[in-house]
Amino acid sequence: MKAIYITRRETFNAAHRLRREDWSDAKNDDVFGKCSNKNWHGHNFELFVTVKGAPSQETGFVMNLKELGTIIKSSVIEKIDHKNINLDVDFMKGIMSSTENLAIGIWDEIKELIDAKGGELVKIKLIETENNFVEYFGGKEPF
Amino acid sequence: MKAIYITRRETFNAAHRLRREDWSDAKNDDVFGKCSNKNWHGHNFELFVTVKGAPSQETGFVMNLKELGTIIKSSVIEKIDHKNINLDVDFMKGIMSSTENLAIGIWDEIKELIDAKGGELVKIKLIETENNFVEYFGGKEPF
Amino acid sequence: MKAIYITRRETFNAAHRLRREDWSDAKNDDVFGKCSNKNWHGHNFELFVTVKGAPSQETGFVMNLKELGTIIKSSVIEKIDHKNINLDVDFMKGIMSSTENLAIGIWDEIKELIDAKGGELVKIKLIETENNFVEYFGGKEPF
Amino acid sequence: MKAIYITRRETFNAAHRLRREDWSDAKNDDVFGKCSNKNWHGHNFELFVTVKGAPSQETGFVMNLKELGTIIKSSVIEKIDHKNINLDVDFMKGIMSSTENLAIGIWDEIKELIDAKGGELVKIKLIETENNFVEYFGGKEPF
Amino acid sequence: MKAIYITRRETFNAAHRLRREDWSDAKNDDVFGKCSNKNWHGHNFELFVTVKGAPSQETGFVMNLKELGTIIKSSVIEKIDHKNINLDVDFMKGIMSSTENLAIGIWDEIKELIDAKGGELVKIKLIETENNFVEYFGGKEPF
Amino acid sequence: MKAIYITRRETFNAAHRLRREDWSDAKNDDVFGKCSNKNWHGHNFELFVTVKGAPSQETGFVMNLKELGTIIKSSVIEKIDHKNINLDVDFMKGIMSSTENLAIGIWDEIKELIDAKGGELVKIKLIETENNFVEYFGGKEPF
Repeated sequence: MKAIYITRRETFNAAHRLRREDWSDAKNDDVFGKCSNKNWHGHNFELFVTVKGAPSQETGFVMNLKELGTIIKSSVIEKIDHKNINLDVDFMKGIMSSTENLAIGIWDEIKELIDAKGGELVKIKLIETENNFVEYFGGKEPF
Repeated sequence: MKAIYITRRETFNAAHRLRREDWSDAKNDDVFGKCSNKNWHGHNFELFVTVKGAPSQETGFVMNLKELGTIIKSSVIEKIDHKNINLDVDFMKGIMSSTENLAIGIWDEIKELIDAKGGELVKIKLIETENNFVEYFGGKEPF
Repeated sequence: MKAIYITRRETFNAAHRLRREDWSDAKNDDVFGKCSNKNWHGHNFELFVTVKGAPSQETGFVMNLKELGTIIKSSVIEKIDHKNINLDVDFMKGIMSSTENLAIGIWDEIKELIDAKGGELVKIKLIETENNFVEYFGGKEPF
Repeated sequence: MKAIYITRRETFNAAHRLRREDWSDAKNDDVFGKCSNKNWHGHNFELFVTVKGAPSQETGFVMNLKELGTIIKSSVIEKIDHKNINLDVDFMKGIMSSTENLAIGIWDEIKELIDAKGGELVKIKLIETENNFVEYFGGKEPF
Repeated sequence: MKAIYITRRETFNAAHRLRREDWSDAKNDDVFGKCSNKNWHGHNFELFVTVKGAPSQETGFVMNLKELGTIIKSSVIEKIDHKNINLDVDFMKGIMSSTENLAIGIWDEIKELIDAKGGELVKIKLIETENNFVEYFGGKEPF
Repeated sequence: MKAIYITRRETFNAAHRLRREDWSDAKNDDVFGKCSNKNWHGHNFELFVTVKGAPSQETGFVMNLKELGTIIKSSVIEKIDHKNINLDVDFMKGIMSSTENLAIGIWDEIKELIDAKGGELVKIKLIETENNFVEYFGGKEPF
């Protein structure tokens, strides 16, 4: 088997804030800085979903990108695009909406759905701004 | 005089929504779609500020980019970065926070400050997402 | 009236070739180089459509981007995306498929439809590769 | 030894289609969608070739980028740039021209040539559009 | 005549500094800041050259991009790529190497050569960093 | 523990040259080509620093990006931005200023400082031009 990795990009725009209600304003400001603004701020996120597999002899595909796109759109984008991550997104309820936690949350939403189609979800990359992004391999540590 | 145009890019992240309280939810949804989400959404904005002038014989500059950056940062970025455009930004109070209106608002904030330094502000470009942006020439219509 | 310019980006992928059947292979190769390859080549095109107008008092919009997107998609993208420009696209039949002519063809497809919605189409920008693009202002010459 | 990874980017434009002649039009359309268009479509591809090695004490190089560029250009770019992948490219004859298979084909063309120069080819990344790309590590599975 | 604008991008890497020998270190630092570093610094420049004209009936071209590329390469890129703008570039001798002056210098190098081919050079855009660029229209002021 | 990877981007502009004084001009030119220009050339570098860890229950952070940014800025950017890598940068003295060696030098400057904060520096990516970059994992070979 010749394992190969395919990646699909989707984008979404959302509001969020990093803020603990059990902390004072001063402590929130000290730890989270501008990201703790009470009235929210937001980002254009770029999401990259990577699936591993062997190309099919018949189609040349690891996985049909249309099917992959459908899973990402229905399980992630529709729930989060033009939404407030802290208030509107069921899978982020009660969780700090850091880019780290959001990437893990997205992984958990789509892992089983993708693997059921014969591919293997191996990586989520989530770009929050041009200056910071996170990568998550389901807890594995390739490096 | 050899007129030349210099442009400075700055970035900011902000939340906003497009929503009229005097309209029903249905009408807001019909006109503004996902952008009317009650709990806000947000973007990474890219702002390009263009100044026209002749390069100085002494420095080769139309305008010192450090000075230009200082004006943009103190008059725009500090007021809007990691903020809610509808709630937190004084120069957008009571105005629909469309990209169009935001570009006009930014122009009005910095026009006099830049022109006082000897350059001439001639254009604002404001990118909201990779798929849409606006350009404003102070009301002039070059094309 | 405060004129402002809004731009919508759409993308499409297409095959084409630059080749005159009334010319020899040698002449085609001399004038069009690699672009004259008999069996076609292709590009990821980026299309930017710019509309001028005054922002509405009610919505802050020059033109509803959803409506603008619908016009571009139905009149251009559906006809050309994943197609052969020379063979499959009605509005390019019998015309050399240079980026210049393609931009003019796209303008002619959408000019009336956009202007009927109250905006004014003022510019088409068409990127063929990272190294070359064209801009068309309906024949006007702003510079 | 301090292993380090250098990557060289090259670009090419090409036409292709995903279509099985032993399938009906309906089945081709169902599986490959727009990519099965009879008259081809095309892309601007970006190719990233990654080589691993220890920097030379004398030059600081893992491998001379000029030599690496020459191998990629003569073995890949000249064969595929401004060509039809299905019809014109010897190493893709009889193979579905999916991005996956193309990345594997490119690896096979350059693996020995690069390794003969003292580096070790370890990765091919091939971007087909801004929304999808593949990565191939010669069949290895780093994650 | 349907005027249309074509643009060709070329890139070059160069060292330079902004520094007046008739000024003290303190004044150089005050006006030019980090850009006055005695031992130089450098950039990856992106150069966009825009030519206006009507597409030829025969070829669909305003100007053959191969010819345009040849002019830019021989008159600009070969003189400046991997060079020191202050020390190595004949057309910048004795001139402050600001982005403004460099754009004007490039215009003067290629204006006649391009216009002799039947197009009309109308714009130079020169990107110095992701945060600043200049545009020059030969002294004209379209906006 | 759910290991996740966060990456921070910083940029700097610098001059350098690849040249051995113990070699003839001809040999320098043969091995290093344009990069050996006596009077230097330069680049806009993009630096990506990747840190691995588990997100904190309290903050959702692997590491506070503000702290990470401070380390990178004080230990790398301030020493190299708008400088000459060969002449001005203490940690590159006497070392060929190839992108490979520069990435290793940057790793050595920040490894202990980052790990002391509880994260683990696992990767440096350094982009020299749009066509070449290097990646360094501290000598480890993930692929």
